[in-house]
Amino acid sequence: MLSAQDNYLLTRTGSGTKMGELFRRYWIPALLAEELPYPDCPPVRVKLLGEELIAFRDTNGKIGLVDEYCPHRRVSLFFGRNEECGIRCPYHGWKFDTEGNCVDLPSEPPESKFKHKVKIKAYPCEERGGVIWIYMGPPELKPELPEQEWMLVSDSQRYISKKIQECNYLQALEGGIDSSHVSILHSCSVRGIGVSKESSSPELLAKDTSPRFEVVDTDYGLLIGARRDADENNFYWRITQFLMPWYTMIPPFGGAPRGGHAWVPMDDENCWVWTWSWRPDRDLTEEDINQMKSGAGIHPKLIPGTFRTVANKDNDFLIDREMQRRGESFAGVFGIGMEDHAVQVSAGSIVDRTKEKLGTSDTAIIKSRQCLLKAIKALEKGEKLPGLDPSSHRIRSASILLPKGIPFQEGAKEALQLTEKDYEAV
Amino acid sequence: MLSAQDNYLLTRTGSGTKMGELFRRYWIPALLAEELPYPDCPPVRVKLLGEELIAFRDTNGKIGLVDEYCPHRRVSLFFGRNEECGIRCPYHGWKFDTEGNCVDLPSEPPESKFKHKVKIKAYPCEERGGVIWIYMGPPELKPELPEQEWMLVSDSQRYISKKIQECNYLQALEGGIDSSHVSILHSCSVRGIGVSKESSSPELLAKDTSPRFEVVDTDYGLLIGARRDADENNFYWRITQFLMPWYTMIPPFGGAPRGGHAWVPMDDENCWVWTWSWRPDRDLTEEDINQMKSGAGIHPKLIPGTFRTVANKDNDFLIDREMQRRGESFAGVFGIGMEDHAVQVSAGSIVDRTKEKLGTSDTAIIKSRQCLLKAIKALEKGEKLPGLDPSSHRIRSASILLPKGIPFQEGAKEALQLTEKDYEAV
Amino acid sequence: MLSAQDNYLLTRTGSGTKMGELFRRYWIPALLAEELPYPDCPPVRVKLLGEELIAFRDTNGKIGLVDEYCPHRRVSLFFGRNEECGIRCPYHGWKFDTEGNCVDLPSEPPESKFKHKVKIKAYPCEERGGVIWIYMGPPELKPELPEQEWMLVSDSQRYISKKIQECNYLQALEGGIDSSHVSILHSCSVRGIGVSKESSSPELLAKDTSPRFEVVDTDYGLLIGARRDADENNFYWRITQFLMPWYTMIPPFGGAPRGGHAWVPMDDENCWVWTWSWRPDRDLTEEDINQMKSGAGIHPKLIPGTFRTVANKDNDFLIDREMQRRGESFAGVFGIGMEDHAVQVSAGSIVDRTKEKLGTSDTAIIKSRQCLLKAIKALEKGEKLPGLDPSSHRIRSASILLPKGIPFQEGAKEALQLTEKDYEAV
Repeated sequence: MLSAQDNYLLTRTGSGTKMGELFRRYWIPALLAEELPYPDCPPVRVKLLGEELIAFRDTNGKIGLVDEYCPHRRVSLFFGRNEECGIRCPYHGWKFDTEGNCVDLPSEPPESKFKHKVKIKAYPCEERGGVIWIYMGPPELKPELPEQEWMLVSDSQRYISKKIQECNYLQALEGGIDSSHVSILHSCSVRGIGVSKESSSPELLAKDTSPRFEVVDTDYGLLIGARRDADENNFYWRITQFLMPWYTMIPPFGGAPRGGHAWVPMDDENCWVWTWSWRPDRDLTEEDINQMKSGAGIHPKLIPGTFRTVANKDNDFLIDREMQRRGESFAGVFGIGMEDHAVQVSAGSIVDRTKEKLGTSDTAIIKSRQCLLKAIKALEKGEKLPGLDPSSHRIRSASILLPKGIPFQEGAKEALQLTEKDYEAV
Repeated sequence: MLSAQDNYLLTRTGSGTKMGELFRRYWIPALLAEELPYPDCPPVRVKLLGEELIAFRDTNGKIGLVDEYCPHRRVSLFFGRNEECGIRCPYHGWKFDTEGNCVDLPSEPPESKFKHKVKIKAYPCEERGGVIWIYMGPPELKPELPEQEWMLVSDSQRYISKKIQECNYLQALEGGIDSSHVSILHSCSVRGIGVSKESSSPELLAKDTSPRFEVVDTDYGLLIGARRDADENNFYWRITQFLMPWYTMIPPFGGAPRGGHAWVPMDDENCWVWTWSWRPDRDLTEEDINQMKSGAGIHPKLIPGTFRTVANKDNDFLIDREMQRRGESFAGVFGIGMEDHAVQVSAGSIVDRTKEKLGTSDTAIIKSRQCLLKAIKALEKGEKLPGLDPSSHRIRSASILLPKGIPFQEGAKEALQLTEKDYEAV
Repeated sequence: MLSAQDNYLLTRTGSGTKMGELFRRYWIPALLAEELPYPDCPPVRVKLLGEELIAFRDTNGKIGLVDEYCPHRRVSLFFGRNEECGIRCPYHGWKFDTEGNCVDLPSEPPESKFKHKVKIKAYPCEERGGVIWIYMGPPELKPELPEQEWMLVSDSQRYISKKIQECNYLQALEGGIDSSHVSILHSCSVRGIGVSKESSSPELLAKDTSPRFEVVDTDYGLLIGARRDADENNFYWRITQFLMPWYTMIPPFGGAPRGGHAWVPMDDENCWVWTWSWRPDRDLTEEDINQMKSGAGIHPKLIPGTFRTVANKDNDFLIDREMQRRGESFAGVFGIGMEDHAVQVSAGSIVDRTKEKLGTSDTAIIKSRQCLLKAIKALEKGEKLPGLDPSSHRIRSASILLPKGIPFQEGAKEALQLTEKDYEAV
């Protein structure tokens, strides 16, 4: 249960909102690099934190992320021309470079100085790890890019997808740190994928459906240990990080590739779900990639040419009662990622958290909300924000059996760190 | 014409509204029994008086009608599993029985007592006459189930349908007590169906298009006599009841099955139209049923798998100007029930009754609004509400020729009563 | 840039708004005459200035334009019957003539006088030039019909179309007086059509993309000269009129037919775009008409049975990046008229003019807003309104080369006037 006020605070991210201002202090994954495949390719619309933007890659390969609307008469630059180092409005030909400078203004006489008074909103961008990143905050406070493991491995070791989920980012994010639901919602689907053949995880997850949570504050956000009974002597720990402001790391399943997410507000009623899978030590296999593309796992199956999932809110996520009855999917929805997507969206665009009834298994959820609210306070006081330091991202999630009595941070210490050596290796 | 205030009062039925509170004192037809065909069948969404609910039939055949949203984290139980005497949320496995008790809460440790603090909103249900009924009012005030004739005949004597009509319940209900429009809107369509072959009704309806209304207050609502000139000595009376809070009874047409409706708010801009046809004395014939399924009469033709009509608001009810021109349908819309549906919806989601211009032929309409407003007052004062007593439902509509000068209640007395004997018979 | 208040004033046209009251003082093009092709043909819905109306042609060929909703119980007359000199409501048969009188009221007794108390809102209509015109203002102030050249030529010399554009009328209208964008947005498309073969206009337009504007107040609205450098001695003038309240005239292109537009509010977020093409001196050729029907020029390609364009807001105007890249359309949108339509709609339903950045090339835009705002003031003071006098419509746009130093009104005087002789000729 949350107060209406705190729920409002946590879920509103537009320009001028407190959470919006906080999020604007971090780099944001904005586009797949492949959405802008070559210099002077067509411009692309992207909506982030409620702001409508146009992305383009200029003649020199430089990325621009600018206001969708031309400052002249507000026409969308989506219909514009991306050519000769700038995007040109289709209406009167005003042209802007990636920095937002007006570099041509053909509708005014050649001698006019008007051009120098015109700017378009433009945000700094970087390309790393197959992703185009944007920074929408105060320029003087721009941090370094994050340094997560998946960003640093070679392209052939990594698979990335993004999709639109039809609800507020927070209820999506909360699924990413909620080990508890894995024992129920995914109980059928994790058995169904190749993953589980080499892993005892599904059995261990099924055996104990009420994990005990231990949550530790860190300089990047939260370290979350979910403990299950394994046998007389051991606990099965699934250890996830909530890395500010919206990253979560999936505890590995057996020999399957590692995975993680970013849950990024598109607007307050829709979010971008980013999913990355990677193998730290070797290339992804064709089988790995086929599995990801199939939609059976955490990656989505998309309507071609869009980032909308085939199974979506408007078709009840293609619920299949027979599949549900046969125990192939607990919710009758195909795919691990879509199971989360379906139930989270089913709670409404922005869940009314004043009506929740939380238990001890929601400890990580509660802590993550506190973490975000605390960061808002820190922002207001001008204090250091968690997760801004790129080196704080050099961490790994873990699934591990530990003897009872040993604190998980200690027992899993090595597994959780991306050591200097690992780091060099990747 | 109605004041804006009274129109608001009459048309708003959500939780906490006056009309909503009144309606919650009555049993409500919620689902066709066949929507929950067998124990542990898939759960079904149903919206009533603005409340979103989930219906399920448990392992023992017992019906549950509970809040759509799990009290834990607000996920929809539509994606839940109906098994082993309860509906289980797909997210963390919380499970509820038909009474709303939490009977399993696997995400908390086995020793936890949290389960006993958790309840989900659940309403009492009954199954009778092929319908699942719900009572959404104060438990201590729950009345007996209605006892209408169609509910008491055998299944083979009855045909029931329901559909969604895209407007407020009141403008649909008003059509059910408005004998006047039958002479115009249905003037073509009643000729078109088998019904009329054995009946002089269409001729009598066409002959006098301006019925005089006599409306009598009763303990169930209103008894409405609509009188037309038949010949020198006789009046043709069509006698309808408005049975609180939303039932209307269709005066019979010749040898056709009897019929009636319930007009139940789904939300304030949509309603459920229930239609029942029955033969008091014998089974429905195959021809009867084929006619009902054809959509030509009062029953709808639905988009398979839904309760939405094939002809609907978004396709202008498939208006066919040629059919209209040829005089096969006065409004160019196929089917008696769809003629009503189309014109009522065409007036807008909630008709603005401050702009009406009512005549003497609207007497029954005016009285029915007064009847509903009076019942609100009675509720506020804690007085007896009309139509709550099941025995008050033991009535029949009538179509009858009576010598001029004889009061219709007297002349039609026998026809209008469902006698103890009839009652036993059915 | 405009104040929020002025933007509101200019863009709201519903009943009771200031701009709405102003527009209601003028005749309004409402329907193509062919939408009501014969006596007693089916009635047609039409929305103008936010008012929902029904148009019908009665048995004698007289046009009626009445409130869509029957005053009795608010049912839409769209489902009504148009027969025997009136439109009859399908519900209870109330019937109205083209003047809005209730001529039959069959639901009341024959002796009733109720009928005489019932009226439906009805507006005066006229048919001229292939268009059905409506006057929605105070009856006593009804002006004469406009007398524009296209209205007066024979049917075989004229082609008219209308379409729905998904934005406020003002941003559409502004495109009609904005010579500047022709050098950019239409730079590719004007080359593509037959027109340009006989004309040097495209070259002249391309040569100077920053026209200087001279705008003159007139008794009909504004006379707008856009001047471009042609050669050492001459200016190329494109001269357009803004004829109150919403007409614009396209400067001719070589030997192509003449053209003009009306930009009429449907509601505040949609407008009717009327386009007329005509040859003053001879019939349109088959080639002319084929070109118009193709959608390549200023006339639209419509979804059959509707006035919605095939390329529309919901499909990104079928943008074709290859066509754009090859330089066949500057915005990648097919058709001159659709280029305007696409970019204007892309700015949003009602453009936020407080965020604009206007240059000298927007002089005509600025003046036209002032002209409309001044007319509102004149209306308030009871002063004469521009463009109400039909003779003020006897004008022509022009494209003309004039020696530098000669004022365009003087140099183009003859070209701009529709002389008494021309007038007789047409």
